[in-house]
Amino acid sequence: MSFFIKFSVHLFIILLGFSLHPAQADDGSNLWLKYDKITDPGLIKVYSSLGSKFWISQKTETGDKIKDEIEKGFNGLFGTHTKLTDDVFQATLIVSTVEKLPKEWKPLVEKELKGKAKEGYFITQMVLKNSKRTIIASYTEAGLMYGIFQLFRSIQTQKIPKNLQIASFPKTKLRILNHWDNLNRTVERGYAGFSIWNWHTLPEDLPDIYEEYARANASIGINGTVLTNVNANALILSHEYLLKVQALAKVFRPFNIKVYLTAKFYAPMTLGKLPTADPKDTVVVAWWNKKAAEIYTIIPDFGGFLVKANSEGEPGPQKYGSTHAEGANLLANAVKPYGGVVIWRAFVYESTQNNDRATQAFNEFEPLDGKFSDNVMIQIKNGPVDFQPREPLHPLFGSMYKSNIMAEVQITQEYFGFSTHLVYLGTLFEEFFKTKIAPGKNNQTVANSLDPAKTTRSLSGISGVANTGTDRNWTGHLFGQANWYCFGRMAWDTELSAKEIAQEWIVQTISRKPAVANLIQKIMMESRENAVNYMTPLGLHHIMALIHHYGPAPWVETKERADWSATYYHKADSIGLGFDRTTKGSNAVNQYDAYYKNLYNDENTCPENMLLWFHHVSWNKKMKSGNTLWDEMCYKYQSGVDSLRKSQKVWNSLEKNIDKAQFLHVRNRFRIQEKEAVWWKDACLTYFQSFSKLPFPKRIELPLHDLNYYKSLQFKYVPGL
Amino acid sequence: MSFFIKFSVHLFIILLGFSLHPAQADDGSNLWLKYDKITDPGLIKVYSSLGSKFWISQKTETGDKIKDEIEKGFNGLFGTHTKLTDDVFQATLIVSTVEKLPKEWKPLVEKELKGKAKEGYFITQMVLKNSKRTIIASYTEAGLMYGIFQLFRSIQTQKIPKNLQIASFPKTKLRILNHWDNLNRTVERGYAGFSIWNWHTLPEDLPDIYEEYARANASIGINGTVLTNVNANALILSHEYLLKVQALAKVFRPFNIKVYLTAKFYAPMTLGKLPTADPKDTVVVAWWNKKAAEIYTIIPDFGGFLVKANSEGEPGPQKYGSTHAEGANLLANAVKPYGGVVIWRAFVYESTQNNDRATQAFNEFEPLDGKFSDNVMIQIKNGPVDFQPREPLHPLFGSMYKSNIMAEVQITQEYFGFSTHLVYLGTLFEEFFKTKIAPGKNNQTVANSLDPAKTTRSLSGISGVANTGTDRNWTGHLFGQANWYCFGRMAWDTELSAKEIAQEWIVQTISRKPAVANLIQKIMMESRENAVNYMTPLGLHHIMALIHHYGPAPWVETKERADWSATYYHKADSIGLGFDRTTKGSNAVNQYDAYYKNLYNDENTCPENMLLWFHHVSWNKKMKSGNTLWDEMCYKYQSGVDSLRKSQKVWNSLEKNIDKAQFLHVRNRFRIQEKEAVWWKDACLTYFQSFSKLPFPKRIELPLHDLNYYKSLQFKYVPGL
Repeated sequence: MSFFIKFSVHLFIILLGFSLHPAQADDGSNLWLKYDKITDPGLIKVYSSLGSKFWISQKTETGDKIKDEIEKGFNGLFGTHTKLTDDVFQATLIVSTVEKLPKEWKPLVEKELKGKAKEGYFITQMVLKNSKRTIIASYTEAGLMYGIFQLFRSIQTQKIPKNLQIASFPKTKLRILNHWDNLNRTVERGYAGFSIWNWHTLPEDLPDIYEEYARANASIGINGTVLTNVNANALILSHEYLLKVQALAKVFRPFNIKVYLTAKFYAPMTLGKLPTADPKDTVVVAWWNKKAAEIYTIIPDFGGFLVKANSEGEPGPQKYGSTHAEGANLLANAVKPYGGVVIWRAFVYESTQNNDRATQAFNEFEPLDGKFSDNVMIQIKNGPVDFQPREPLHPLFGSMYKSNIMAEVQITQEYFGFSTHLVYLGTLFEEFFKTKIAPGKNNQTVANSLDPAKTTRSLSGISGVANTGTDRNWTGHLFGQANWYCFGRMAWDTELSAKEIAQEWIVQTISRKPAVANLIQKIMMESRENAVNYMTPLGLHHIMALIHHYGPAPWVETKERADWSATYYHKADSIGLGFDRTTKGSNAVNQYDAYYKNLYNDENTCPENMLLWFHHVSWNKKMKSGNTLWDEMCYKYQSGVDSLRKSQKVWNSLEKNIDKAQFLHVRNRFRIQEKEAVWWKDACLTYFQSFSKLPFPKRIELPLHDLNYYKSLQFKYVPGL
Repeated sequence: MSFFIKFSVHLFIILLGFSLHPAQADDGSNLWLKYDKITDPGLIKVYSSLGSKFWISQKTETGDKIKDEIEKGFNGLFGTHTKLTDDVFQATLIVSTVEKLPKEWKPLVEKELKGKAKEGYFITQMVLKNSKRTIIASYTEAGLMYGIFQLFRSIQTQKIPKNLQIASFPKTKLRILNHWDNLNRTVERGYAGFSIWNWHTLPEDLPDIYEEYARANASIGINGTVLTNVNANALILSHEYLLKVQALAKVFRPFNIKVYLTAKFYAPMTLGKLPTADPKDTVVVAWWNKKAAEIYTIIPDFGGFLVKANSEGEPGPQKYGSTHAEGANLLANAVKPYGGVVIWRAFVYESTQNNDRATQAFNEFEPLDGKFSDNVMIQIKNGPVDFQPREPLHPLFGSMYKSNIMAEVQITQEYFGFSTHLVYLGTLFEEFFKTKIAPGKNNQTVANSLDPAKTTRSLSGISGVANTGTDRNWTGHLFGQANWYCFGRMAWDTELSAKEIAQEWIVQTISRKPAVANLIQKIMMESRENAVNYMTPLGLHHIMALIHHYGPAPWVETKERADWSATYYHKADSIGLGFDRTTKGSNAVNQYDAYYKNLYNDENTCPENMLLWFHHVSWNKKMKSGNTLWDEMCYKYQSGVDSLRKSQKVWNSLEKNIDKAQFLHVRNRFRIQEKEAVWWKDACLTYFQSFSKLPFPKRIELPLHDLNYYKSLQFKYVPGL
């Protein structure tokens, strides 16, 4: 027996070495799919043998990926080796499309799945033929994959109902990442290194990272990806590059992810050498039709085009006296025979109309409602300006009822401190999706408006501007992963709360210890409001630095484009602060439903967190707290910094409880965030004080430098351009 | 007993899962430091307990890193947990400076170490105080670290002599990587992603990759790194950036790696706002002195400056009527009080002197020999043009005897197919280091000339232009790691052969199976000659595309700079091919020692692999093979392609024997290489045929396209700019 004691102890030591080593230096590359070993004896007892023999109905590439995932999951979580069986009646875990399920078991799942979104799945557990079995069923193999990821998520979050019964269906059809990746591998507004698409070595070389990307997206329900920047380059539509796209599409396909590309409106000229890109020109029409045919020959399940037109210098149909609808329909007709869509961005503004940029998208698009082809989707940002820390709802959500729409949020932290600030965007997404569109009339929320089951729209979806890059941990900041994760989860189910998604992410990524997870969850849940406060409290917006957007610069004035000036947005003067968008001002309030119009139009009913968005307010106005606007603003800036420091302290207290590499990484980035939060507070307060001429109230930490110092700061080589 | 059987078997299965999993998907991030488990029972018996108790003399940061390495090594290779002991007499492994070794053991090691380079080490094994002990000793703690890395390398290569006795000393003093990394994170001639220096998040954030970089370099003996591009940006010398450099220096210091920066000659103007950068101006002198003082306050062990001046548009002292020596001495005087050096590049050429670029460095520098301060090193590339696949020796090696010199080779594959071609540069480095400088006079080789023990030079070193980047595997191509590895090993010991270094790298990185390793070694050893043949056989050079250097373009002519034209270098015409550098031509041969001058000057004695470098040769000249030049050239191009295909086939046969991810990665890149080798052959042969008007000989695969096709190819977004 001594041999076995020695042998087993020896092995145990080695094993510890193996299992501790990775846990001690998590570089973040495995995201939320680490499948760290479960130590809870209760969970082990219930679930470790759940997949001891499994059967998969699909002998397809997706089936292979499902098999891989089952093996990874059980091996990682429980250290058990699962076995694939050919006999469905032998299996303890049955992963099957409805069609291929043994006839006698079909009714059990059909009653849950019938009539619902086909990508949905049903997980159930019951005794069948005298054995306890777990069934994951769906009408599609994509649904089966989603079900497997849900199973492992549920096990880790320990949230499986006692009878293990979960039915889930996506609440919107297209759940898409938008990569603002350029062909030279820079990423516009990318803060996690460079583009993961290595165009130079495609199509031959397919590093694992491509499949890892697809798997990560599939695990959270994302089903499409726009590979290229909305500030588009027609070269991506050349035959040479389409072959590269084809190679990526092949990797993504088994994970139910379609590729989309951005289309440059001038492509018929720059790529096709035509003299015009006029959408009314038959040669142009023919060129797009031919290009679409070529694309679908190469990529039969190509998703479609995303287009930014007539905005910020991008070309578009208006150049030819045509409308957005005519431009969009040109491309939509080209891809329609193949089932493709055109996603046309409503983010448009031209510097010639400078009274209020926030109103321009509505002005241009609302009159076109009903004129878009049925395979066009209008992509509308959550707010009317540009992904600011807090914006009111984009008014187009309350108007384009005859058009298909796509909501657009930004996952990359262009306006949230790049990848060095811990800002969990789940609360922003939730605020957005749960906003009621026309409270005076009905209870419809943004979420409802994107749910085909709840509108007459044939198509709808949710886009997120990706925050991924070549950094080993994918997103620069570890907590950037949570924003990617949350985006996918919420795009699948807009009813999920930011809080529960945060919890899911934490237990899969950092710690399953409830006390630790709860502290981290609190940090996350407060983080966005902290950032709003130390950057742009009370409805302030667009006061960051020009071009690269790094840091505060409320003094920015550029004659070239007034709508890029910070002063255009805050309008600080000796009297007060804020943009008058009331009926007496730019009248932007008039683009909203009557309820919001009235609410926002009155300085006294307008929610204070949007006050300066809609009103030019006297420095001395009494706020609800009893403070003057000036004092209140000072306190908000200070509270952003203070609350952030508290979070930092909490994080630093976790050193002994979490992975060392994770701990140091976040600790270091908190140091940058704290420094920059103070910078934001100080730069903004010294600047606004030059208008208010008022002293800082008590308890405000005095700025470290004078205004000239902050104005003098210049930064070169800021990432994300 | 059954419990233990079950327990141990269970553990064994888990263990297999853990150990097989990483082996099945090696993404290359661990380089040659994987320490995969040793399975050879003989080795296990001899070495697994060698470090069971170890003692380290150094209670320093370096000591901590040595401890970490010992633990990683024994844990990885043998699965054994080593223990640090405080009692040197209890230790089986003693890692000690000579100074701190118990007195009675000192003589044993001093006789090996005395009078030799201080970074060297001595490893020995003997019975002391009745126990068998292994001692690693050095005069420096850096030497101890090098010794530890050597120990693990020796164990893995199974090359430890029976009595385990190894003494090794660096043959040159400075062993430095040159990073051509820009502050915006692009890397000039970088093909492995982007710069690993994330300037935006420095100095606060210090991801593990920085320490991993230092450790990898230390493992192969590199002791310095120039962080920034030779095409320099003065911003790196600003206080703000120096604090970022300080943070990196702190991470590198325990690994005996000094940081160096590139200095822009105009820095006193662009950064210091002075009206001039004239080296004779006392204000300029004062500026550099003050800047050096600032740098050394921040980084006390700062290595020094690397300068590219008066070349390719970079500013320099000639602008002010001063010489390279005066410019170099200006900076050298500034850093001298702190022990810093100035590395001044001899890679200079100006487009105004267009008769023969290959002669310019010699013309400018040779007359200055003896005029440089003793802390200046002249950095000379291996050949006189620019890192071409094959060049003759740079003539400055045979002339600057009164100056300190630094040899410069290129690890990144600017002219070797970027990171998609498998080209092992060990054979190029070896060819260079073993070249005799003046064979008529003596046997001194380039290697000897860099060895302080063999010259009167007080300083010498070897620089390599780095091939590292953000790619997970560091170097783009897995085999690019071998070039980094080989550079370090050969810089430490120029006597090592490319073949043995290849073997070392393979067994640590890919496979310890002799049959597999031998096949891979053969692929590596043939790879550079293959590339020479399919790109630039017989002394052809500089016929790649303009600017980005991607692919063949012997037709390039640019009026802006004749010395960037391919035609300038090959001079093809109806009569023949090649650059006449004989006494009747540019007279470049006159820059060499008499032996080489005579050898190269005569078409009949000139080695054929450099024939077209030195001669304009008739298409019909009979070569040693009996073929005409034209036929011979065609056969060389074909043989490059053929031999490459053989290597590809050998690699593809290894599928079952090596890690899957490694296999696929290299297989995919071989596909690109094969395609591009054919492209090189076809483009060059169709082009040169337009001059020779001769038919392709038998057995030549006919080009796939005509010359116009190859000329028409345009590439955008090529990496490395």
